[in-house]
Amino acid sequence: MTIILDAMGSDDRPDPEVQGAVIAANELNEEIVLVGNKNELESLLKNVPGDKSRVHIAHAPEALDMSDHIVEARAKKQNSMKIGMELVKEGRGDAFVTAGNTGMAMYFAKKTFGDIEGVIRPCLCGVFPVRNGKAVVLDIGANAECRPEFLVQFSIMGKIYAQTMLKIAAPRVGLLSNGEEEGKGNNLVRETFPLLENVEQINFVGNVEGKELFGGDVDVVVTDGFTGNVVLKSTEAVAKLIVDILKEELMSSFRTKMGGLLAKPAFGKLRSMLDPSEVGAAPLLGIDALVFVGHGRSDTKAIVSAIREAKQAVDNHLLEELRIAITESLS
Amino acid sequence: MTIILDAMGSDDRPDPEVQGAVIAANELNEEIVLVGNKNELESLLKNVPGDKSRVHIAHAPEALDMSDHIVEARAKKQNSMKIGMELVKEGRGDAFVTAGNTGMAMYFAKKTFGDIEGVIRPCLCGVFPVRNGKAVVLDIGANAECRPEFLVQFSIMGKIYAQTMLKIAAPRVGLLSNGEEEGKGNNLVRETFPLLENVEQINFVGNVEGKELFGGDVDVVVTDGFTGNVVLKSTEAVAKLIVDILKEELMSSFRTKMGGLLAKPAFGKLRSMLDPSEVGAAPLLGIDALVFVGHGRSDTKAIVSAIREAKQAVDNHLLEELRIAITESLS
Repeated sequence: MTIILDAMGSDDRPDPEVQGAVIAANELNEEIVLVGNKNELESLLKNVPGDKSRVHIAHAPEALDMSDHIVEARAKKQNSMKIGMELVKEGRGDAFVTAGNTGMAMYFAKKTFGDIEGVIRPCLCGVFPVRNGKAVVLDIGANAECRPEFLVQFSIMGKIYAQTMLKIAAPRVGLLSNGEEEGKGNNLVRETFPLLENVEQINFVGNVEGKELFGGDVDVVVTDGFTGNVVLKSTEAVAKLIVDILKEELMSSFRTKMGGLLAKPAFGKLRSMLDPSEVGAAPLLGIDALVFVGHGRSDTKAIVSAIREAKQAVDNHLLEELRIAITESLS
Repeated sequence: MTIILDAMGSDDRPDPEVQGAVIAANELNEEIVLVGNKNELESLLKNVPGDKSRVHIAHAPEALDMSDHIVEARAKKQNSMKIGMELVKEGRGDAFVTAGNTGMAMYFAKKTFGDIEGVIRPCLCGVFPVRNGKAVVLDIGANAECRPEFLVQFSIMGKIYAQTMLKIAAPRVGLLSNGEEEGKGNNLVRETFPLLENVEQINFVGNVEGKELFGGDVDVVVTDGFTGNVVLKSTEAVAKLIVDILKEELMSSFRTKMGGLLAKPAFGKLRSMLDPSEVGAAPLLGIDALVFVGHGRSDTKAIVSAIREAKQAVDNHLLEELRIAITESLS
């Protein structure tokens, strides 16, 4: 297996990518191709300790910036994201990983691979830490405006992701709303509800709220990309605020500092639950290839975790499972 | 001043209301009228310690249930919410407080008081705990579907609330979106953005995300009632999950228990920040009266805090300020 890694995606590029590639190649025993400026990557790679026999370099003279829009991105015809995806398209890699701009990743992925046959809109799929595990939320940002039939497909793709990647046999699928009762919701939710009730492929549990999502009462939560993105960022911000305040208050006196030191083992579960580098990367579901987008703030650990996720997707035939499920839903 | 309190609103009604009325009447030195079954309230009141000379009872033989919809609610012609609002309408009270069903409160408030002249849609206004203070978010649930002009009025009403109640001189007003740049957002956000730029009455700071909201970089956040409600409930659920896990982990060993005890003073700020009973109640802004809706799970402390907020609104002429601002916005 070969994973193609955009070396120029993260905010601190290409260091986290170069180091992450070496660690992941050895941990996973797979080939990794770093895509970026050949000379720069070669000299950086030299200074990274460890066995580098499975880490390769593909040259891409240009790199996208986080602030690039479509116009600037298209002008960079040799950017690392585009060239990396083309390697996958040519069969020289099994999956593509980037910590770059999500919008640009979706743009180049659609251009390079197109959609899985039958998919109306690909979406960005998020994995949220919840009580006793994880839940899949989609769309978290690709489609700010959605029609009910988009959400129906998100529910099927989310179910396949939960089954294949999180190993949940019969994922419970909920529709995010402002109230649990049928009839609650905005127009989109009220039109989508009866459609989801009739999707035989999924185990639809009805409308859900934050309580059910974070309480672990649902495995897949379907929503439009605007709401999903706002929920993702708001809940991340609240978690950060709580942790920051707790840290500050623990440092505020000798007594609380000592208490904090003693209580340290208790913070481990919370830390790993909230650590963005443990979550891995968000797949672009519905694209006819395996494309994973990590956080722009990815560090080495986050890059390794994104590569691990991509490998798992290849191992578990995520793309094939998605193709089968979409075909089945149309028949 | 007289505050009319629905005695039959909270999940544990009427105990929190009866106890809260006595505490608030003495703390605030104002008159409070409990609305509910006279005999029941009289006998309960007898058993509450303290001076009860400022607590009065108005009889309402019926009570709404949390599960009541419009049809059931309308059939209860003598319900405590309706009768309490009518007392305010008749000039026998200055503000109305309930911990009952928000949808029903909005329904009866519109019927009893109507809207402030010029208001297109009243909304439910939430006060969120954020870094170094509080932020106003509206709409948090009254209007699942919104048009841009609704959001323009929410921005003006939110500004007045922040000025009058939170004493913020020039509140920064943001539009909740899935990205900070202009042009980000769903159709509603993209249509609302240029309108907000042209509202002279407000200090519009552009699109905001969870980071700005919870980071304390904005004082008023405008959104549709679907998104606002989902954000409110999701962030509450995440905060609860974090606190629950922290508590469980602190109790998991002798060492962490000791650490938790030593560190206890450090948890105070977090506890008071996240305590729903400290937040008070959500005002129905745009209704031509002062109506506050507390959480259904309100305890005595939460009822006191809701009454305190209602008093503050009367003292600070919130309703008059709203009327002036709406009139000004139309001229």
